[in-house]
Amino acid sequence: MKKELCTDLYELTMGQTYFDNGEVEDKACFDVFFRTNPFNGNYTVSGGLDEVIDYVKNLKFDKEDIDYLKSLNLFSDEYLEYLANFKFTGDIYAVEDGTVIFPNEPIITVVAPKIEAQILETTLLTLFNYGSLITTKAARLCEVSGNRPIMEFGTRRSRGVDAAIEAAKYAVVGGFSGTSNVEAARKYGLVPMGTMAHSLIQNYEDEKMAFLKYAKSNPNNCLFLVDTYDTLRSGIPNAIWVADNYLTPNGLEFKGIRIDSGDLAYLSKEARKMLDEAGYPDAKICLSNGLDEDTIISLIRQGACFDSIGLGDNISAINDRVNGVYKLCAVEEDKKLYPRIKVSNDQVKTINPGYKKVYRFYDKDSGYALGDVISLAYEDIDKDEYTLISPVEEWKQKHLTNYDVVELQKQIFDDGELVYEVPSISARRDKVKKEMNSLYPEIKRLENPQEYFVDLSMPLLKLKKEMLREHTYQNIKSKSLEKEM
Amino acid sequence: MKKELCTDLYELTMGQTYFDNGEVEDKACFDVFFRTNPFNGNYTVSGGLDEVIDYVKNLKFDKEDIDYLKSLNLFSDEYLEYLANFKFTGDIYAVEDGTVIFPNEPIITVVAPKIEAQILETTLLTLFNYGSLITTKAARLCEVSGNRPIMEFGTRRSRGVDAAIEAAKYAVVGGFSGTSNVEAARKYGLVPMGTMAHSLIQNYEDEKMAFLKYAKSNPNNCLFLVDTYDTLRSGIPNAIWVADNYLTPNGLEFKGIRIDSGDLAYLSKEARKMLDEAGYPDAKICLSNGLDEDTIISLIRQGACFDSIGLGDNISAINDRVNGVYKLCAVEEDKKLYPRIKVSNDQVKTINPGYKKVYRFYDKDSGYALGDVISLAYEDIDKDEYTLISPVEEWKQKHLTNYDVVELQKQIFDDGELVYEVPSISARRDKVKKEMNSLYPEIKRLENPQEYFVDLSMPLLKLKKEMLREHTYQNIKSKSLEKEM
Repeated sequence: MKKELCTDLYELTMGQTYFDNGEVEDKACFDVFFRTNPFNGNYTVSGGLDEVIDYVKNLKFDKEDIDYLKSLNLFSDEYLEYLANFKFTGDIYAVEDGTVIFPNEPIITVVAPKIEAQILETTLLTLFNYGSLITTKAARLCEVSGNRPIMEFGTRRSRGVDAAIEAAKYAVVGGFSGTSNVEAARKYGLVPMGTMAHSLIQNYEDEKMAFLKYAKSNPNNCLFLVDTYDTLRSGIPNAIWVADNYLTPNGLEFKGIRIDSGDLAYLSKEARKMLDEAGYPDAKICLSNGLDEDTIISLIRQGACFDSIGLGDNISAINDRVNGVYKLCAVEEDKKLYPRIKVSNDQVKTINPGYKKVYRFYDKDSGYALGDVISLAYEDIDKDEYTLISPVEEWKQKHLTNYDVVELQKQIFDDGELVYEVPSISARRDKVKKEMNSLYPEIKRLENPQEYFVDLSMPLLKLKKEMLREHTYQNIKSKSLEKEM
Repeated sequence: MKKELCTDLYELTMGQTYFDNGEVEDKACFDVFFRTNPFNGNYTVSGGLDEVIDYVKNLKFDKEDIDYLKSLNLFSDEYLEYLANFKFTGDIYAVEDGTVIFPNEPIITVVAPKIEAQILETTLLTLFNYGSLITTKAARLCEVSGNRPIMEFGTRRSRGVDAAIEAAKYAVVGGFSGTSNVEAARKYGLVPMGTMAHSLIQNYEDEKMAFLKYAKSNPNNCLFLVDTYDTLRSGIPNAIWVADNYLTPNGLEFKGIRIDSGDLAYLSKEARKMLDEAGYPDAKICLSNGLDEDTIISLIRQGACFDSIGLGDNISAINDRVNGVYKLCAVEEDKKLYPRIKVSNDQVKTINPGYKKVYRFYDKDSGYALGDVISLAYEDIDKDEYTLISPVEEWKQKHLTNYDVVELQKQIFDDGELVYEVPSISARRDKVKKEMNSLYPEIKRLENPQEYFVDLSMPLLKLKKEMLREHTYQNIKSKSLEKEM
């Protein structure tokens, strides 16, 4: 899929305005950030930077694109000529994929000639939002499933073919063990996984026959699906029968079973007993059927016996979003970036102005993340002591001393040149694990999680308050408006 | 994106079993159906058939695919050779896109050599589920918005770039007026639409200047976004100022404004007054900001003044799914299709067995749809009288006389040959409108909608009950199992 024109029309019409106004070289600074965490949680795990890089690196408008835009009669020939030669020439800073991130933090910061920065908006958001959504969900699920591997089975519930492939990738980055999607496995070098469907069982005269035939043709990839007719009275006894009469005599391993319906807690415990009693303590039990964080925790609490999870609905087709936005926060004049603000009638839509950075404090002894601070780019953060102020209740403060402080964004593009290498999927997966381990359990718990401290630095807070005062309740008169008329 | 391998691994490993068992020519019958309507509604509008056709028509495994599959060490060389020559040779019947459909009805029926039918499963479901989800949502939104056109603005919240483009298409099929996604507009001939973003306003010294500059460079595509600082005190007065001082003097039309935050009911009424008083009764008011069926109805009830809607979050990124499944319902033996059933420990997962058809009864006078019946394929439906039985409460019956009865599925593929022409997007859009008008308002209402009658024919119900009896609580012994060992 060509991504060039997969953008909102207004990015291009606003570009026309900047172009007409002679602002082709003038830079602006935009931040990608989000306002709330998905899944009623208190953290998000960033994703999608890999695709953002691919998009920006390859962004150009070919003849077909230009011809289409021309046909709309919205754009001047001079501007279309500019677009025909378009190439991203700016700087991009971003938090690496797999980092835990929090509301209002600048995740991706673009400092670029404003038409370029504007045109990136839509696709940048699409890719960041989706990548972060799936990575976060996968990390949450793996957090509760502990050592039980989770297989991604969600293709059929995905929002189209490409959404499925990307979901599989981000699920594995977030901690899943593999995917049923063969194309995703091929494209990204993931482990392809699967068991069998009910149709196979139904296809044969009886269940035992179906298991036997499948075992013969797939001796090394054979997890029997036992719930087509009756899990305890038919499915499991038949699986054991095939193990006794075909697998074991032929020196093949009885890998296990999958249960996809019914009371999974009860059935899995009974299944474990039956498998053990039949002499197969190593045969694994895989559970599936709309599992989610809550049901996994509940199964564990009930003592359900399971070794792995097949999960589809609640990964690729999850009902939530990461609502990343892309906001102008500074504009260049005379080679200097001046802050801009957006006020809005909705308080929550007011942004943090200026070109900013974000830093994280880690406890030197435990390694836990203590809090973050969003600062103006020029600020230095004290290496020895710092007072974090709660974003919600200002009287809650945390005085820090024994910490390491790390800047979260890395430079990705420098004057249009890619200066960052995307880590491998397994490296990103390791990063997610490390990042999740850096969060206090109180922040990760599902019910009433503790809010993570994200402080605004004093200079940023001061600037924001000043700009709000200036912009509210007044209808600013422009000095240069007369010139424009 | 290549769709060939975008399938679950188990489709291919089950194919290996069918292949090893000499079932390459043996046919099976699969139905796509779903169990509940999305959005707590009582109907679904089908979509995705256009993409399903494109997928099936072009389905083949190239050398790269085969090489990858070979590298997995799961498949025999003979089977890989079969896959290398794979081509769909079966029959497909389907309900046309834009049709209102109901739970448990066979929407797409595949009768094909079983390996072929099995391999289609994953992608067929992905495409049907997504197409139907967006088409249904769009139809629901247009139902409540009445004559106010809705523009699709959801790309940035979509599940990736391709999901965005497909969402734009299905939104327009469902009744939206156009999309902000330029690539979707180009690819599918939709109307590209857009206004301006807050960044444009922030970019200039003041709001008036931003409006003026945008108007100059986009004179024919100019809806002013008025909520960057203060809608009533700054945004609207500035828009009127630009209309008075630039648009009107230059013979240009003041198209209107967009409000994207705040109390949309209150602000839109005040805005209407201000625009009218300034002499612009034809200037339109567009509302956006997370609108949904409920908020649109609420706005209308409050007398909000708006002419169009920009809608993103609740179309491409909606939090629901169509959970279509693909179930084996018959298997060929000696050139005859024999019914198959799946029982499951979850009652709801029990399927309707056999090769089936679905019919709809329309009142001859009013044209309203009265109910549907799912029957076995061989049955004839009486053209003169029929008794529909409520799917939920059997004592609720409806005796029909004055009706037209129509078979819902059309043949799409005949022995692998495409025999159906996908209607244009505007024809599908008209169909959605017609279909929605065929539903009683009681079925379409948002709160406690009336359930639509979907009857099982007597022969189908009898078959289902017999097969359930046969399969429950017994561990069937296969006569031919000894042969297999």
